[in-house]
Amino acid sequence: MKQILSQHREQLKRFMESYLDSKSEDFSIINHWGADVISRFKGFALNGKLVRGCLVLAFAKMFSKGRFDEENVLRAAAAMEFAHSSLLIHDDIIDRDDMRRGNPSINHQYEGYASEHGFTDPRHFGLSFAICAGDIGFFMANDLLSTVEIPREDKLILMRLFSSELCNVGLAEMQDIDFEHLEDNITEDDIINMYTYKTARYTFSLPMMMGAIISGASEEIIAKLQAIGENLGMIFQIKDDELGIFGDERTLGKSVGIDIRDRKKTLYYSLLMSTPRKDELYILNNIFGKSDIDENDIDIVKKIIVDRGISGKISLRIKSFEFSAKRLIDELDIGDDSRSIILEILKYNLERKS
Amino acid sequence: MKQILSQHREQLKRFMESYLDSKSEDFSIINHWGADVISRFKGFALNGKLVRGCLVLAFAKMFSKGRFDEENVLRAAAAMEFAHSSLLIHDDIIDRDDMRRGNPSINHQYEGYASEHGFTDPRHFGLSFAICAGDIGFFMANDLLSTVEIPREDKLILMRLFSSELCNVGLAEMQDIDFEHLEDNITEDDIINMYTYKTARYTFSLPMMMGAIISGASEEIIAKLQAIGENLGMIFQIKDDELGIFGDERTLGKSVGIDIRDRKKTLYYSLLMSTPRKDELYILNNIFGKSDIDENDIDIVKKIIVDRGISGKISLRIKSFEFSAKRLIDELDIGDDSRSIILEILKYNLERKS
Repeated sequence: MKQILSQHREQLKRFMESYLDSKSEDFSIINHWGADVISRFKGFALNGKLVRGCLVLAFAKMFSKGRFDEENVLRAAAAMEFAHSSLLIHDDIIDRDDMRRGNPSINHQYEGYASEHGFTDPRHFGLSFAICAGDIGFFMANDLLSTVEIPREDKLILMRLFSSELCNVGLAEMQDIDFEHLEDNITEDDIINMYTYKTARYTFSLPMMMGAIISGASEEIIAKLQAIGENLGMIFQIKDDELGIFGDERTLGKSVGIDIRDRKKTLYYSLLMSTPRKDELYILNNIFGKSDIDENDIDIVKKIIVDRGISGKISLRIKSFEFSAKRLIDELDIGDDSRSIILEILKYNLERKS
Repeated sequence: MKQILSQHREQLKRFMESYLDSKSEDFSIINHWGADVISRFKGFALNGKLVRGCLVLAFAKMFSKGRFDEENVLRAAAAMEFAHSSLLIHDDIIDRDDMRRGNPSINHQYEGYASEHGFTDPRHFGLSFAICAGDIGFFMANDLLSTVEIPREDKLILMRLFSSELCNVGLAEMQDIDFEHLEDNITEDDIINMYTYKTARYTFSLPMMMGAIISGASEEIIAKLQAIGENLGMIFQIKDDELGIFGDERTLGKSVGIDIRDRKKTLYYSLLMSTPRKDELYILNNIFGKSDIDENDIDIVKKIIVDRGISGKISLRIKSFEFSAKRLIDELDIGDDSRSIILEILKYNLERKS
């Protein structure tokens, strides 16, 4: 994964930057918010890891048989990243996040603007502008995707896949918001279902398939990439949950225990709450959702997770996703170089510490 | 206009309904919010006048030279309407509107759901779900638009035009929100600029051009339709402002004076405030923004508008848009039947009472 990022990230970043520069010119004709929103969007979008965009590039290259039209693939990769940024911009409104990628979130930036200018209700001004900024990002993504030059049938598949997976993310986001409010415990299956559409397919299957479609890979391969991506993505997400509890803050570069503080409905939470011991339930209910959570609280949760065999259960879950991924990767009709790239992503997701 | 609506609306409605039904099935596989959001989106989208979608159909027919692929055009028309519904869904969050098209707005519907279920902060839940619902609508629009089957070059022009105009609407929306908060008077030019992108091009130029592009009209015609649409749209919007002050509530089917109550930055407001008499300024400042505005207040504003020659100035503005539109329509290389359809739209916009 690190190799994929180091190989493609800078180039993708430059492409995104130059597209956004040209949009800034176009938008400046409309009104003065044009350049403003693009400059903020740029700070936001270029600051990400660009995992999804780089996956589009890597998989397009993998199936290109030498005919790799870089410009073309970069358009799709940038479209993926712009749509992702827009989702995050809207997500920050929903989660009331003031920070993202080390900077103030877009809603928070515009809230600041409104405060400086003495507007009434700066918070509402901030979220209103961030809704617009996200919408504009979605349409820039669609603009870029529509310029990808591939055979008509492939193009149709590419565009419909993109739209359809982004609809699915919206539905999974609704489910996730709803989960936050539900009093009853969420079943393991419901969590897995939400992860599938909110993270796994969207972060792995979609960009992998997009790259493969652009390079004209067979239907069979594309279908298998979807399944492989789901497994890779599930591992990625569950590891993310694990790092959120067991991770090292310095390696991670962010606080540990936030999911616990926010009583986030993760797989760990679901398993902990499914058949709890009464005394533990009392303790857990006092820790989950506690705004001033400390290291000691986190250690208690960790201990219960380990003692109750939940870490073991989750390791088994991951093993099973790993097994499925490996079987599917084995079956894939591709060269050894390509296979080892996919296996590297699997390895990265399994071993990641940040 | 009424003729265009009566000719196309029912058919478009049926098409939109059947597309949404198929999406409801697809989305039900993801989670139970799938069917829920589609059912609310359906109630919302099908309840509109469908002006924009019907314009796509009418202009596609106008330039079709007999080869009118109905299914194809319906896809673009429905895409236009879905994007419009999504914009309104997001707009209702921004404007904190609880009602739309005679029903509770989507944010308000989900706020109600959250209240019923005793969730904390139902308002935030409502707006969060409405953000997602709008995003999903945008991607359904893009999905539909990508299935339009026309020559590759036309398709590219169609898709890029659509994305680009929707970006412009986002920028104009930001400008409009900003105007609300500005203390200084907004210049006439700024208002006209905002109207151009928020209403005129989006409501008239875009759907007219989409229809013409699908039917393979020439570049020259498409460029002229853009200009004609801008003029038609400006008349439509200014008449809308006029009806909001001078309209008849019974004919209009909605309250008069809301723009005054909300101190909305319309062309009337801008002209009234640009060179006010001191005594009038005092009176106007007491009426604009007054939450319990009554008929007497509105009559005072009306009188000042007339006495200060603002109605006359605005009539001249409209005359000049009418003149430009007529000149452009005259120049258009089309048959008499087509010309009379466009002239009918102009007439409708000039004379509309609701």
